[in-house]
Amino acid sequence: MHQLQDAAAVVGVGATDYYRRGRSVPATAMDLAVSAVRAALEDAGLGPRDVDGFALYAGGLNTGFLAQQLGVPDVRFNATLPGGGGGSAGCLGLAAGAIVSGQASVVVSVMALQQATYRLGQAGGKGSPYAFTPSPETDFSVPFGWVSPGHKYALAARRHMHLYGTTREHFAEVAISTRANAVRRPGALMQQPLTLDDYFDGRMIADPLCLYDFCLESDGAVALVTTSTERARDLARPPVLIHAAAFGGDGVNSPQLPWANSPDEYFASGYSEAVARTLYERSEIGPGDIDVAQLYDHFGPMVLMQLEDYGFCGRGESGDFVADGNIRWPDGGLPVNTHGGHLSEAYVMGMTHLREAVEQLRGTATNQVDGAHTALVSGGPASIPMSAVILRKDEP
Amino acid sequence: MHQLQDAAAVVGVGATDYYRRGRSVPATAMDLAVSAVRAALEDAGLGPRDVDGFALYAGGLNTGFLAQQLGVPDVRFNATLPGGGGGSAGCLGLAAGAIVSGQASVVVSVMALQQATYRLGQAGGKGSPYAFTPSPETDFSVPFGWVSPGHKYALAARRHMHLYGTTREHFAEVAISTRANAVRRPGALMQQPLTLDDYFDGRMIADPLCLYDFCLESDGAVALVTTSTERARDLARPPVLIHAAAFGGDGVNSPQLPWANSPDEYFASGYSEAVARTLYERSEIGPGDIDVAQLYDHFGPMVLMQLEDYGFCGRGESGDFVADGNIRWPDGGLPVNTHGGHLSEAYVMGMTHLREAVEQLRGTATNQVDGAHTALVSGGPASIPMSAVILRKDEP
Repeated sequence: MHQLQDAAAVVGVGATDYYRRGRSVPATAMDLAVSAVRAALEDAGLGPRDVDGFALYAGGLNTGFLAQQLGVPDVRFNATLPGGGGGSAGCLGLAAGAIVSGQASVVVSVMALQQATYRLGQAGGKGSPYAFTPSPETDFSVPFGWVSPGHKYALAARRHMHLYGTTREHFAEVAISTRANAVRRPGALMQQPLTLDDYFDGRMIADPLCLYDFCLESDGAVALVTTSTERARDLARPPVLIHAAAFGGDGVNSPQLPWANSPDEYFASGYSEAVARTLYERSEIGPGDIDVAQLYDHFGPMVLMQLEDYGFCGRGESGDFVADGNIRWPDGGLPVNTHGGHLSEAYVMGMTHLREAVEQLRGTATNQVDGAHTALVSGGPASIPMSAVILRKDEP
Repeated sequence: MHQLQDAAAVVGVGATDYYRRGRSVPATAMDLAVSAVRAALEDAGLGPRDVDGFALYAGGLNTGFLAQQLGVPDVRFNATLPGGGGGSAGCLGLAAGAIVSGQASVVVSVMALQQATYRLGQAGGKGSPYAFTPSPETDFSVPFGWVSPGHKYALAARRHMHLYGTTREHFAEVAISTRANAVRRPGALMQQPLTLDDYFDGRMIADPLCLYDFCLESDGAVALVTTSTERARDLARPPVLIHAAAFGGDGVNSPQLPWANSPDEYFASGYSEAVARTLYERSEIGPGDIDVAQLYDHFGPMVLMQLEDYGFCGRGESGDFVADGNIRWPDGGLPVNTHGGHLSEAYVMGMTHLREAVEQLRGTATNQVDGAHTALVSGGPASIPMSAVILRKDEP
């Protein structure tokens, strides 16, 4: 049994409201983060003085300031997964590792976005990783018009269509089923149902990705609090166990020089297979035992590729898998993004997916999957570290 | 006994040459990092396919690209300490935690600087954390001319003089003793001895910090390889055990809004006391048992404050401590920065200090401390996370 298995648990969840991009002003990202963390601690029945760790991802927040604003007297673990949303699910693995190795006892994970003065992923934007700054890497992409995340993932989507006969109708099924979940969920930003006609009427942005294949742009924050399973059992809420976690990826067939030198089996994938392999190695739960999945959906087609990467269907079969209604709530075999995902609830870089998984396993989700015992959450595909976590109910 | 205690060991060290700022061109920071990692792996008798983890600090390097350039097929741990040089010593704690919690088996830590097109810490510089971008934090500093690291640490140095009678002669002793170590070390950038007259002739930059209180600006890279102590004993080099490690800090009396709201006992310190307390809690070795210390010296006076923070002398007594010759090699009670430190060897944001500690405990240092069994290395003071590590020889 892997050291991390069921050793730590999520004991608190908190979030701000979600806002359309820039609408949370005058709140800063730090303000949003502090609100979410306080809410998560209250949910757990803990206070800032109980906190001694921060396990984050995607950089961004100054944890020194955060600790100061919260009033945390003794930070003993403070690390972050590099890169972007790829590490979102992995922050729980980082937290669990800190706890298991005796470095911290109560660990906060938080993500906050306030995009009033910048747009995440904007091509050439100030401070954007997609800025037009010449570098050995961008020299191979920017001159060819390959400058923003949409361009990057359009290539993968097109390749999947080419190799496996995947169609835009399959992409639409991700957008439509996710929207249906959002419409039922108060606070989700998108509250109008989406039809197939709507989808095809959506303007093309980066062919084959249309408007409805792109995630929302939002402001907001979500925080989680993690502690040892033993301590979790004495707290206010039913613990949600971190059963297995993995973050990293295949650095040889790597997406970092994106799709530049990968064989086909990687090219049309989320590059998450190495992480999936590690995850299941550390788990007693296989893909067939997962009740609900929250898969990182910055771009709808990447949900299809992750269904394959994480073994929910065979390579190239995700189109048929979703066409058969499998990812629909409540009747599908594997309801996906039951909160409305990045496509229709809000984009907080993966953290909303973790929040939803915890709610599902507490039995308090809006679109509750009956008797959900296990959930898989993935971080963003195709950006090292990729990450994933399997959460489960605490059942003796 | 703490879980991390002696559980992991440094088994490989590698470095590039050190260059004056910008002189490593055409090498990029990534080129330097790859060279240092390859050298460290070779030193350990390992190859890139053995690596499965990256434990870094201060962000910067894209570990996805790094893994690709090295050819690491399965990254299983990939995290970084946020902030700047504060986390340098802590990266070994992060690595040890990854190993102890079963997340990775061979972990690389690396720092590379190539400052041809930017200067770290330059006020208002592009991409600099000290940029003049208005923010809730900089609104309290920039309008008052408080814009670069030198300004920040000048305040602390002045306060130490005011409270404890510390003099510029004490600051000079740090600069002079460190220079003496560099002069004996091939590859160190500064090869001319420094006299007290030289020191006082140095131009004042941020009163009371003069030219010789400032660290160098350099290019270069240093890498370390860590694995479990058990595996380390089968490898090429004598293992250097990670006896104890800590990173974090006091978020209430925090240096993040720098010295804005701290009582005097923090104001004239490196704010490292919380980290020191955690470090010794996890250790069987106290300050009196340390044979050699490598203390982060972006500014010479911060060495004095860290001598106090880490318990080598009482609060306010570091001036007398250094005046008594204690930090001199070879005869002082606690030789400090035996490689020449940031002040006179090279500035690679703390990583050279870890390299020197490993060399001391292998018995291969240039300025070898006779019979050195234990070493303490600190990361940058006054920037959360602060960090420190105690290393020791592997002696049954």
